Amino acid sequence: MSQNPVRIGLIGCGTVGGGVAKLLREQRELYVGRLGVPIEVARVLVRDPGKYGSNPHVSAELFTDDADAFFDTPDMPIVVEVAGGVGHISQYTRRALEQKKHVVTANKTLLAQEGPELFAMARGQGVSIAFEASCAGGIPIVNAILFGLSANHVDALYGILNGTSNYILTAMTRRGQSYAAALDEAQEKGFAEADPTMDVSGQDAAQKLAILASLAFNTRITGDRVHCRGIDKLDLADIGFGAELGYDIKLLAIAESDGGGEGISLRTEPCFIHKDQPLAQVLGSYNAMSVYGHAVGQTMYYGRGAGALPTASAVVADIINVASGWYPHAFGALNVWPDRHGVAQIADPDDLRSRFYLRINAKDMPGVLAKITAILGKAKISISGVSQHEYGAGRFVPLVLITDVAREGDLKRALAHIALLDVISGSPVCLRIVDLPSD
Amino acid sequence: MSQNPVRIGLIGCGTVGGGVAKLLREQRELYVGRLGVPIEVARVLVRDPGKYGSNPHVSAELFTDDADAFFDTPDMPIVVEVAGGVGHISQYTRRALEQKKHVVTANKTLLAQEGPELFAMARGQGVSIAFEASCAGGIPIVNAILFGLSANHVDALYGILNGTSNYILTAMTRRGQSYAAALDEAQEKGFAEADPTMDVSGQDAAQKLAILASLAFNTRITGDRVHCRGIDKLDLADIGFGAELGYDIKLLAIAESDGGGEGISLRTEPCFIHKDQPLAQVLGSYNAMSVYGHAVGQTMYYGRGAGALPTASAVVADIINVASGWYPHAFGALNVWPDRHGVAQIADPDDLRSRFYLRINAKDMPGVLAKITAILGKAKISISGVSQHEYGAGRFVPLVLITDVAREGDLKRALAHIALLDVISGSPVCLRIVDLPSD
Repeated sequence: MSQNPVRIGLIGCGTVGGGVAKLLREQRELYVGRLGVPIEVARVLVRDPGKYGSNPHVSAELFTDDADAFFDTPDMPIVVEVAGGVGHISQYTRRALEQKKHVVTANKTLLAQEGPELFAMARGQGVSIAFEASCAGGIPIVNAILFGLSANHVDALYGILNGTSNYILTAMTRRGQSYAAALDEAQEKGFAEADPTMDVSGQDAAQKLAILASLAFNTRITGDRVHCRGIDKLDLADIGFGAELGYDIKLLAIAESDGGGEGISLRTEPCFIHKDQPLAQVLGSYNAMSVYGHAVGQTMYYGRGAGALPTASAVVADIINVASGWYPHAFGALNVWPDRHGVAQIADPDDLRSRFYLRINAKDMPGVLAKITAILGKAKISISGVSQHEYGAGRFVPLVLITDVAREGDLKRALAHIALLDVISGSPVCLRIVDLPSD
Repeated sequence: MSQNPVRIGLIGCGTVGGGVAKLLREQRELYVGRLGVPIEVARVLVRDPGKYGSNPHVSAELFTDDADAFFDTPDMPIVVEVAGGVGHISQYTRRALEQKKHVVTANKTLLAQEGPELFAMARGQGVSIAFEASCAGGIPIVNAILFGLSANHVDALYGILNGTSNYILTAMTRRGQSYAAALDEAQEKGFAEADPTMDVSGQDAAQKLAILASLAFNTRITGDRVHCRGIDKLDLADIGFGAELGYDIKLLAIAESDGGGEGISLRTEPCFIHKDQPLAQVLGSYNAMSVYGHAVGQTMYYGRGAGALPTASAVVADIINVASGWYPHAFGALNVWPDRHGVAQIADPDDLRSRFYLRINAKDMPGVLAKITAILGKAKISISGVSQHEYGAGRFVPLVLITDVAREGDLKRALAHIALLDVISGSPVCLRIVDLPSD
């Protein structure tokens, strides 16, 4: 076995890139032991090389802001992109592929938008793209779907793919904090960014879901096809009422091959799940993904979805897998990447069939419940449970209803109708109850 | 891409083999889509071919009890061993390797005893052995350790690797059944065999742990090196007292790189873990494995550890991975299989340092606790909690003590001493409390 090191080019040296550099330096001997040859950083492309003069893991002279110099670096068969974003990063990725360099990337946004095109380009050039770090950080979920579960028709994915949201929901659920207070705390502790929109809106999770669902269902799905609803409008009252019924609230990224209607149902939204479900025990900033296969049944993968070293763990495993040659071999031999498949048919969100939790602020007076259930009944929505949580004759009090399985479009129309009643205050709250398959 | 099918030879056609045959027939098109070529059963070696005349998934004429005929089958580059056991099955495995056939196996007993020798033999012949199904059934944990977590020094494995035991413990914990009643129920429902010894003694889990720890720590470990203690002596009273303190009991298979003492600590035993730990939520016949890596932190893998289709899911994924060529490439290129490493240094079980739960049936009279704690104190074991659960002057009542971190050998000596006191009845009960690393 040759002792020549594998030399990588690094694009970006922020949190994740710094973690990669640290692992490669500190664990050099471990990786030599496993791969047979050392992995070395040949060049680092960053916006401001001056900032990295005292980086403890990479010599200052390896940093450059000159893309031409970076791509001219000789003997650099792998480019590792940990900068994030699209635009010029997409151009760098394409340039690496044009040069027949393998790409290891942590960039979910890029892959959720341009994945199939980039995979096809890599295939045409005889190289590969490895992207374990793009979804759920250190959890080897891409690997599990591609190589561990390939004997299965995947029925569904249910994931907690955004650590920021899960941290906030855990603080609300377990410590009774308001959304605003929990977000403040997450920002203070570094679990949320100054602008948390991508995280709390569900869009970050939607991008990861699009990538994983593409692999699980052997099809092409872009991030913008995922129906998104965030956690920023959640009320503590609903979390409490749900808990009384045995449910925990989670921001779930869901892909179901048969969620009702035609095509794959793709959604990211706050949902109630039974508190005995393993996913309900995923707390704080942890991530998890449940994959249901027709043969294997339920499997779940749990771990840190972000952070310098957990994400670098996935990036470096990809580097080892690419450098050893097995991943490029698999990339060429198996038809499990989305460039080999057509565009997915996505179900209309209104066609989703599910149970729902409803909270309606209704006047505490005779006949109100009858009015509400009459409207629901006309829409063919039956109710399996009702509870009124406060009493005050003539005042508005919260009325909680649990529906049987209903079509979401029908329910939305009925709720719009109910909201117009003069015995109702504000908009009804509607949250999906996900009955995870069990046995 | 060639349209020639990949032809496999199947050794054994019981529960797992039947599941493999079913998947290969029913999902033929799915696998053609992923692999590019069909997978076909070329020959099946069984003890009594007459039994399989009406097998719905394999033609009767493919069954044989003639090993020579089986191994003479032309164009059969992969042998899939799902018969289990050692002895002649080991001979068949060697014969396949001698013929330069790849081996896919679900045989934990064989690999836990002869793995390194078989891996070395495969390597010498230029073929590979894939064995995802040998550990934790359908959970792709071998794949995760070998290819997903390779950037990590693994610190520890904590697994629930025996579904029978977990089913029994769940029935005891959640439904208050006695061990005997829970075992009866497990046998009725097909979750336990008529002779449940391998499962409830911890030996089955020990074999799987030996294989997984070999991969995680890059070393050689045989199943007989794992310190085993079963669940068959567990008393409901201890489960109840533990629950009051916030703990659930689990049969854990544990490999720790630093459990105290020199070398790797390897154990399978009933342990208390905090009920908020994800492992505590693994119920019924499910399996799970937590892997702690120095970079990634805690990861966990959850799913069905046994059963026809979950296990066949892992076997067929291995067939796809071998047939596509990537797994053989990896097997040759990476040094992560135990034949490339030396024999592990195993820590003396007595050197384990942990907290412990103790129950001592002691006379309810002044001075008794002082006698017990004096003996423990002399052995340098300090107590962080004491509770007496019944009162009855002069009678024997259960006294529960929680120790601080102590060396197990010291504790055992002290308990032997305590058992001799005339104010004590029966043997003290001692269960490890595993404080899973968290952050």
